[in-house]
Amino acid sequence: MKHLRHSLWIPLIVLTHSCAERTENKTDQGTAAVAATTPLPSWSEGPAQRIADYVKRVTSEKSVDFIPVADRIAVFDNDGTLWPEQPVPNQLVFARHWILSQAEAHPEWQEDPVLKALLEPGFSDWIGLGAEGLKKLMLKSHTGMTEEAFHQSVSIWSDTAIDPRYGQPYTRVLYQPMLELIDYLKAHGFTVFIVSGGGADFMRVWSEEAYGIPPFHVVGSYTGAEFVSDSTGVSVLKTAQEVYFDDKAAKPVAIHRFIGKVPVFCGGNSDGDLAMMQYTASSPYPSFCLLLHHTDSVREYAYDLHTLSGHLEEALTEAQNRGWMVVDMKTDFREIFAF
Amino acid sequence: MKHLRHSLWIPLIVLTHSCAERTENKTDQGTAAVAATTPLPSWSEGPAQRIADYVKRVTSEKSVDFIPVADRIAVFDNDGTLWPEQPVPNQLVFARHWILSQAEAHPEWQEDPVLKALLEPGFSDWIGLGAEGLKKLMLKSHTGMTEEAFHQSVSIWSDTAIDPRYGQPYTRVLYQPMLELIDYLKAHGFTVFIVSGGGADFMRVWSEEAYGIPPFHVVGSYTGAEFVSDSTGVSVLKTAQEVYFDDKAAKPVAIHRFIGKVPVFCGGNSDGDLAMMQYTASSPYPSFCLLLHHTDSVREYAYDLHTLSGHLEEALTEAQNRGWMVVDMKTDFREIFAF
Repeated sequence: MKHLRHSLWIPLIVLTHSCAERTENKTDQGTAAVAATTPLPSWSEGPAQRIADYVKRVTSEKSVDFIPVADRIAVFDNDGTLWPEQPVPNQLVFARHWILSQAEAHPEWQEDPVLKALLEPGFSDWIGLGAEGLKKLMLKSHTGMTEEAFHQSVSIWSDTAIDPRYGQPYTRVLYQPMLELIDYLKAHGFTVFIVSGGGADFMRVWSEEAYGIPPFHVVGSYTGAEFVSDSTGVSVLKTAQEVYFDDKAAKPVAIHRFIGKVPVFCGGNSDGDLAMMQYTASSPYPSFCLLLHHTDSVREYAYDLHTLSGHLEEALTEAQNRGWMVVDMKTDFREIFAF
Repeated sequence: MKHLRHSLWIPLIVLTHSCAERTENKTDQGTAAVAATTPLPSWSEGPAQRIADYVKRVTSEKSVDFIPVADRIAVFDNDGTLWPEQPVPNQLVFARHWILSQAEAHPEWQEDPVLKALLEPGFSDWIGLGAEGLKKLMLKSHTGMTEEAFHQSVSIWSDTAIDPRYGQPYTRVLYQPMLELIDYLKAHGFTVFIVSGGGADFMRVWSEEAYGIPPFHVVGSYTGAEFVSDSTGVSVLKTAQEVYFDDKAAKPVAIHRFIGKVPVFCGGNSDGDLAMMQYTASSPYPSFCLLLHHTDSVREYAYDLHTLSGHLEEALTEAQNRGWMVVDMKTDFREIFAF
């Protein structure tokens, strides 16, 4: 249980300190003509070229920096790296959706201040839930059911819930340049994994359709599980024991445990991703670390070390010091979303 | 740590009770002419046809039993299913090899009765080590080093150690019919995983070369791990905490945790595989469970419920009751090994 407190602090920290600006306006910035020659059309020319140069360098058989296909492991954080994490992580939106969907069968929830608050129409005071409230929400919505029932709940949410800002299903509000990057790496023999602080079981429901990444290449936080057998058959039950929170130093440990190879390509956007970037950079092969910097308050959100959140501080400094690629989303992404 | 005792009982149980017969003689049984029409030439006709019928049924797009590629998950136990587990599991042979390789730097090991015994030339009294001795051997040889150092040790062993019975490197003493089955399933869109009680880090070193299964499709027992950073850089250290022993009910839990989908094809050879077979059989798709029965004392080993070991008893009964495929290795394998 020792990781659980930390895991629930994360959304709280994001909620409490984030100074992300938000606007409904879209810009014309993304409509610049796309160079037909680049394999990464939604990226600006400089960053696209830098990525392409690396990929060419490590996949050309005659290159001294050639990496065999078996060792072309790429890992990406999810929240804030492949899809937005503002104003709150989407997994919390799903969690509240689950509470709403089950409320009719649980009139007693009206007696619980946390659940009562969540059930109120237009609820938005996530900070007011406090760490204990968020913990209650997460455990109630993510454990105590079979994996099949949980999958079904996430599936309903991902099929129906709409991001109010973008008017699209959450699982379509994905960074188009990152989708292109994933496809580009896969086309060059990389095996691409998600390594996220988000729940593995949550992401696995829609990762294949959204990113073309199968569930068994999704590494994330996970709870305990138990194999149960009764008169109706067998199933796996999600339990609240043994919660593993896949963030910071736990990310390279999870890569070791789930993937078994040191990556050569890593994408992230926060201090939570620094350890896996350091791990990637420790590869004996030439490696590539990419850090998304959320700088576009018009098309997406802007938050970083200049805000109170401070959750991108160490990683940004280290990226700059070590010459990793820092992606300025405002200027480096021609388009942010496909829609 | 709660699983550790169990994990170390397994080799002990095998050692104590197994009545496996052993012989140096080979038979001519395997040299029967191979039907050119079968995709599984080392299998006898009946079992080969049964497997092919299933695969055709679930991969023909017009079949009512069609399974989409994304859901074609196959899982195989390793010890006794893909390679021999007699007279002792190969991982114990590696563990002793590691002790021998490090002994020169550790004269104090001569003061330890367990390590001293292991260091004796021609050591073979595994039972005499006792559960505590085996635990000491496993922890000493598998934890307290970086993942890189451990990988290197296993790599040296798998490149150099020779199975004394077959005169081949251990990682070539593989069941040829099972290799053909893995390739056959892969050729039909299945993603093939190992789900073994053996150590994941141990298997991952040679799984790609031996089976064509990459490390990230190898699920096994695992120890704790820690991300460490010092003046020389970063690395992942294998620790003795949080040992997960991937056997019995822990196998479906590990499939849930690592793969995230219920398999449709499962191969095993012992009661330790029963839970993952039951889990596979719970798939809403038509499933296929295959249980290897070690019946060939001439070409391999013979051990089962008729011996004292009893470690294939429940699974054999359930396989027979539910009509799963029980593979009689003596008659159903035309060839057992490729050499």
